[in-house]
Amino acid sequence: MKRSDLALYLVTDSGLLLGRPLETVVAQAVKGGVTMVQLREKSASSYEFYQLAMALKKCLSAYRVPLIINDRLDIALACNAEGLHIGQQDLPYEVARRLLGKNKIIGLSVESVEDARKADKLDVDYIGISPVFHTPTKTDTAPALGLEGIREISRICHHPSVGIGGINEQNVAGIITSGADGIAVVSAIMSAPDPEKAARTLKELVIQVQNK
Amino acid sequence: MKRSDLALYLVTDSGLLLGRPLETVVAQAVKGGVTMVQLREKSASSYEFYQLAMALKKCLSAYRVPLIINDRLDIALACNAEGLHIGQQDLPYEVARRLLGKNKIIGLSVESVEDARKADKLDVDYIGISPVFHTPTKTDTAPALGLEGIREISRICHHPSVGIGGINEQNVAGIITSGADGIAVVSAIMSAPDPEKAARTLKELVIQVQNK
Repeated sequence: MKRSDLALYLVTDSGLLLGRPLETVVAQAVKGGVTMVQLREKSASSYEFYQLAMALKKCLSAYRVPLIINDRLDIALACNAEGLHIGQQDLPYEVARRLLGKNKIIGLSVESVEDARKADKLDVDYIGISPVFHTPTKTDTAPALGLEGIREISRICHHPSVGIGGINEQNVAGIITSGADGIAVVSAIMSAPDPEKAARTLKELVIQVQNK
Repeated sequence: MKRSDLALYLVTDSGLLLGRPLETVVAQAVKGGVTMVQLREKSASSYEFYQLAMALKKCLSAYRVPLIINDRLDIALACNAEGLHIGQQDLPYEVARRLLGKNKIIGLSVESVEDARKADKLDVDYIGISPVFHTPTKTDTAPALGLEGIREISRICHHPSVGIGGINEQNVAGIITSGADGIAVVSAIMSAPDPEKAARTLKELVIQVQNK
């Protein structure tokens, strides 16, 4: 995995699609420049999750965009996803690595400086710094870390990173200049009237700041 | 797996423990004669599920009682459980078998005659005929099959089987004489004031009817 794969990281939320099919929104977002997609389903049955994962895997393979599965290592194995994203309440990292092997991407959510110190000692492929800002998308999050949090965590933990939580066009620049390799977004793309356009705008902002 | 392993199959429910630790109740039930244990956790985080599975695995290994994980193949892999139980809304059987291999036990819930016909063509290790009677333990179940349902499904589907749903001391005999190899219980043991005694009584009833 390259750091540039994290530039614009889309996390799905089936509740924010405004009635559109998930695959349609994801495909549009990828056309707009999304570099990685995480399928996150917290209320689907295993069967529904598996079906969605298989559909996204097929769609994303055509664009050579990696598919990452949130939490559910069994779904990641079942659809042969490129990787797994785990939070602090999911399977321990060491267990996930043992079951997935060395060739899969494993990302880990880091919600505090303490988490960052621990993550730095693991061979995770990337970290998600979460949440940067307050977000209504996810209700079980730790306190917002702010841009100062990104700076501090980036000093402590040397893995590639994305910031996540409340990110939109207005605050992209701060996330990148504070040390993250990319931005992870949910509603800014999932609920956008034009997901392709929203993705393109966000991607251009990330690249602009990185090239400064 | 032998048919006798299904004689008294305990399905856990952390909500029915009356404040007692899960491991304590399961250990008492196993002393009373439980032959197989399914860990079922529908609201736990993956981390909590994994921790419970590891604790039960350790406890059950000492008694040589197989541990079966409900739905979550990743947890089954993580704790090296003896098997997995899947319902009609879980991973497809073929996918589960491919990921778990031939040496693990895979059980499948059968909720209708149609499910039974399909299950008969699969190399599942056992089926759970569900629900036999109406049960308040599980709210997402299909209509009760009754003893006639067990008889019909047993004629169609030749795998070892347990009946589940609303089973107690009063109706054990009918379940076994209708064709099931054993009974699966939740509240009859999980909420019993004395789980060991409850298990012993149920087990004796099963054996009595089988020996007639």
